[in-house]
Amino acid sequence: MKKTRIQIFDTTLRDGEQVPGCKLNTSEKIKIARKLEKMGVDIIEAGFPISSPGDFNSVEKICKSIYKPIICSLSRAVKKDIEVAASALKYAKNPRIHTGIGTSKYHIKYKFNSTPKKIIEVAIEAVKYAKKFVEDVEFYAEDAGRTENNFLAQICEAVIKAGATVLNIPDTTGYCLPEEYAEKIKFLKENVNSIDKVTISTHCHDDMGLSTANSIAGIINGAKQIECTINGIGERAGNTSLEEVVMIMKQHKKLNFYTKINTKLLYKTSKLVSECTGMFVQSNKAIVGANAFSHSSGIHQDGLIKKRETYEVIDPKDVGVNKSSILLTARSGRSALAYRYKKLGYSFNKSKLNIIYPKFLKYADKKKEIYDEDLKKILNNE
Amino acid sequence: MKKTRIQIFDTTLRDGEQVPGCKLNTSEKIKIARKLEKMGVDIIEAGFPISSPGDFNSVEKICKSIYKPIICSLSRAVKKDIEVAASALKYAKNPRIHTGIGTSKYHIKYKFNSTPKKIIEVAIEAVKYAKKFVEDVEFYAEDAGRTENNFLAQICEAVIKAGATVLNIPDTTGYCLPEEYAEKIKFLKENVNSIDKVTISTHCHDDMGLSTANSIAGIINGAKQIECTINGIGERAGNTSLEEVVMIMKQHKKLNFYTKINTKLLYKTSKLVSECTGMFVQSNKAIVGANAFSHSSGIHQDGLIKKRETYEVIDPKDVGVNKSSILLTARSGRSALAYRYKKLGYSFNKSKLNIIYPKFLKYADKKKEIYDEDLKKILNNE
Repeated sequence: MKKTRIQIFDTTLRDGEQVPGCKLNTSEKIKIARKLEKMGVDIIEAGFPISSPGDFNSVEKICKSIYKPIICSLSRAVKKDIEVAASALKYAKNPRIHTGIGTSKYHIKYKFNSTPKKIIEVAIEAVKYAKKFVEDVEFYAEDAGRTENNFLAQICEAVIKAGATVLNIPDTTGYCLPEEYAEKIKFLKENVNSIDKVTISTHCHDDMGLSTANSIAGIINGAKQIECTINGIGERAGNTSLEEVVMIMKQHKKLNFYTKINTKLLYKTSKLVSECTGMFVQSNKAIVGANAFSHSSGIHQDGLIKKRETYEVIDPKDVGVNKSSILLTARSGRSALAYRYKKLGYSFNKSKLNIIYPKFLKYADKKKEIYDEDLKKILNNE
Repeated sequence: MKKTRIQIFDTTLRDGEQVPGCKLNTSEKIKIARKLEKMGVDIIEAGFPISSPGDFNSVEKICKSIYKPIICSLSRAVKKDIEVAASALKYAKNPRIHTGIGTSKYHIKYKFNSTPKKIIEVAIEAVKYAKKFVEDVEFYAEDAGRTENNFLAQICEAVIKAGATVLNIPDTTGYCLPEEYAEKIKFLKENVNSIDKVTISTHCHDDMGLSTANSIAGIINGAKQIECTINGIGERAGNTSLEEVVMIMKQHKKLNFYTKINTKLLYKTSKLVSECTGMFVQSNKAIVGANAFSHSSGIHQDGLIKKRETYEVIDPKDVGVNKSSILLTARSGRSALAYRYKKLGYSFNKSKLNIIYPKFLKYADKKKEIYDEDLKKILNNE
């Protein structure tokens, strides 16, 4: 079966950056954009130019520095926004305007004090207006996750007619369960005229910890673009982690998807983004966390020393991490202790190891981690 | 329809603690166990007593300090392990021994250099031996995620016959897609004799970012216990986050599940665990991250000020967070600016706001976040 290509739309510089404590200056944004280009991202959402002169400047500069990916610029469904977005894209080789409006009852009623009919009109207007500036126009139906499917299908059909090339179906509030999000994408595939002429995009937030599962559910049901960020940064609990969805597609071959991402650059890119944004990544973060390939419990270390695949489904080298770590703590066993001593040049038989091991444990019960110098001390005190 | 009760099995003190950089001393473990008891956890996995004298001591002390939850103690399928686990549980009001063995081809072949037949024999022996000490015996089929379903069903049936009360089906390596994990639990429900007499438990790791989705897929298909940790700490990329699965069950009423957890204590418990373990939680972490209920972009702030539900699917009070934050950055809009000035006692009309806003943006483009004192400076420089 032919594999389906999934486009990776990185919004680290837009959704990722618009969070407390995370502002990036223009030179940092360019640095990150270059890294994303090198890694093989298909689309870079560079910013929301109407939001501030600094952001406009960043988008413009990125357009001048980046060659291969599409550069996308966010706007609301407001003429002035669209004009500014288009103007910031002036130097882009492959420009895309991303415009849209809230479509859930919460947004229509409370945010816009409007009606579904009027919202559709505004959406059509916005897409048509954006088309005056660029060919590639992505429409977002904000809070699509909580939008009733029939209305969502209506607005999608209307904006396709108006010229939209990509339909972004965001789970803005991170509300959907995977089966609900799957159902939504499937409903659109089955109920919107000309849907096959456009690309459906996922954009899932992680408020319940389900953004990765929802994005994968989306592509299984017909979406061909995933919006995501490095380290999963983004509004509130963040956006879908690029590294997670990319590695799922790589490891689960029977899903039959592929991306253009060079996964060996994932770890370096993660590091760059966390350094520039000051948004640290927790140790227990999938793929890029400090402990993602570390092992300290005896059972796991023993298995790992015998064969890596026993406890690791991803080869750390595939994401640019040098190797798995065998760390020594009070949960470590004889096998790991012998392994680490061997690396220091000591080789023990079983009975000798049985003498050293309880001494090691006594020591380790008092310390979080045992380093090489501790191992030497334990031997010397023997 | 009657709601199904899901048992929450917290393994923060065992799987959570057995990671690099995270050792807890006995008094910290007791402090956390008390908090878990207060929050309404059903089972506390207190440790792996054979691993070290310190850990044995912690499990014993927890048994003396905790009254309501079941206290569970881990062991391999090894007589000595089981004896030590039982001994550490001596003072428990509701003791449970958790024993098991690897069942995937990786574990059988490379870790144990054994055969499926022998593995089943060892499993039966272990459960029978544990039953000599306690009535409540949970069996784990390590790496069940990568275990062939027919063999998994065989070993499950054998240990139920031997007296197991709970069957833990761990996705030890975080490998499964939600539909695969769902299929596995469903297969066991349909193919294992007497399966309805025992509790099926999920235990999912987050190596691909899917642990929460997998756990939910598990209960939808018949599991009635979820193993999880506070903040999702645990081996490598960690375990399923307790706070995420609990809030999904609470928010998605149509799933028809409930737990005994007092969700208002989630945030405080998360704080306690991150302080004691030194395992910090990233800002963009669902439910308990610093930014989980923070908003800095203009579009979101405007919606939130009009009605909280526009951008939040969880009321922060429900998890013990005081309120949503409206932070000011260069991505903020007029609405948030006016809101924050109003809190400082200033009220502006629209034209005045239109004069201040560009000044604010100029200031904000240079700074990560704008505080009250900055707002005053902006006014004074006017």
